[in-house]
Amino acid sequence: MARNQPIGIFDSGIGGLTVANAVSGLLPEEEIIYFGDTAHLPYGDKSAESIQHYSLRITDFLLEKNCKLILIACNTASAAAFETVEKYLNGNVPLVNVIDPVVEAVAADLSIRKIGIIGTKGTIKSGVYEQKLKALRPDLETVALATALLASMIEAGFYNNSVSQAVINSYLAYPDFSDIQGMIMACTHYPLIEKEVASYFNQRIKIFNSNNLVANRVKKTLEQLDLLNDARQNPHHFYVSDFTESFEQTTKIFFQGEIHLEHSPIWE
Amino acid sequence: MARNQPIGIFDSGIGGLTVANAVSGLLPEEEIIYFGDTAHLPYGDKSAESIQHYSLRITDFLLEKNCKLILIACNTASAAAFETVEKYLNGNVPLVNVIDPVVEAVAADLSIRKIGIIGTKGTIKSGVYEQKLKALRPDLETVALATALLASMIEAGFYNNSVSQAVINSYLAYPDFSDIQGMIMACTHYPLIEKEVASYFNQRIKIFNSNNLVANRVKKTLEQLDLLNDARQNPHHFYVSDFTESFEQTTKIFFQGEIHLEHSPIWE
Repeated sequence: MARNQPIGIFDSGIGGLTVANAVSGLLPEEEIIYFGDTAHLPYGDKSAESIQHYSLRITDFLLEKNCKLILIACNTASAAAFETVEKYLNGNVPLVNVIDPVVEAVAADLSIRKIGIIGTKGTIKSGVYEQKLKALRPDLETVALATALLASMIEAGFYNNSVSQAVINSYLAYPDFSDIQGMIMACTHYPLIEKEVASYFNQRIKIFNSNNLVANRVKKTLEQLDLLNDARQNPHHFYVSDFTESFEQTTKIFFQGEIHLEHSPIWE
Repeated sequence: MARNQPIGIFDSGIGGLTVANAVSGLLPEEEIIYFGDTAHLPYGDKSAESIQHYSLRITDFLLEKNCKLILIACNTASAAAFETVEKYLNGNVPLVNVIDPVVEAVAADLSIRKIGIIGTKGTIKSGVYEQKLKALRPDLETVALATALLASMIEAGFYNNSVSQAVINSYLAYPDFSDIQGMIMACTHYPLIEKEVASYFNQRIKIFNSNNLVANRVKKTLEQLDLLNDARQNPHHFYVSDFTESFEQTTKIFFQGEIHLEHSPIWE
């Protein structure tokens, strides 16, 4: 593998652009190939079997684009399909997910004795955060809640306003959250509501948001393999499996700067 | 065709069950074959081309099940794919959509001089309601607004509560709605928020909701073809292209009585 090969990033749609943005900020010399599976968006309500099927096909797409590392920039897909994709890649291409870096950061923070987790139905139902956290910190108490509406709410443009505050308050009023010391924002859309969540808890708790942790993990992984690029030659590419103008407009919420989406209908 | 053949109904997911429920209530002797394309749900954000492609495949599925009439129980699919499916059926099987019965009811109501329309991005962007209304009533003023979050909000269980009220108020505060005499609820999820919309306008406006109008259209169409069944022999069947327990639980919101979903992965 060569240093100038691109990094492949995929998500169910455009929420993963928050992760791509963090990677691009930390590693400006890396070329990014992004794939958003907008034909199946959102993954939060889909079955694990379907998400595994989609993830393998997208992995093939990114391998065809010659990616030197693949990053699953979606919690639901990381929960449902990480092991499937890892097995498929068989160690030939490094694979990063958005869950492990956060789990390790939380486990290492001994001021956290009880942690909240919010995410899609698929992520929460998988129980993946609880399992991984317990393996590292058996004493840690966990409380997870599926907050099904938050991702669509953010995509519809509702954040930092009275509507988002009403929706967020309604979820966070969950009684088991009253004595947590931290919250895992287990969805790549959620950085946009981080301030509102922090403010609900009067800045009393720590918010764990995967983006910077994941970008660091990508950097470290490439460093270890001596695959960090030092001079990017090509522009980033952003592909979607279904194209609408509305997606292109919505990308602005999640990625700093203009994005041109390319339609790659891999399911047809 | 025989009277005891089933009626085929399809939607992107489970919202169309409100229409199936109205059909089943008006025509209890009819057998229903329902198909919810949960693998691609929601259609509201998908491109017209994709929705046409999905609708044709689902039509094939319903024809294989021997349906005597097909009903597109989704506004987005009715807007994007009605003509495509109609052409495909070539007059061999009658096709009903959820738009025409409502358009005719609104056009016939001369007390309405300005009508509001709310629906998904796909439905509103198509402009289908405005075009069809203008053809029947050139003097009618129309004002349409994409209310992208409402369908997911209802599916997430938020209706008749303070959260749904905040979201609904935020959309309906659209200044052009201030002098309408009626509102078209252009999404099969919206019957669940009909009371809240009526209450926002202090019961001052008429609410046009497709379900009963569409059920009547199905009845009339079958009567004209002498295809009304008088004694149902088989139970209804409800198929989905992707199965999760959460879908099965959510069906209770949209259909009176228990529903058992059958998984039919037609895309694999």
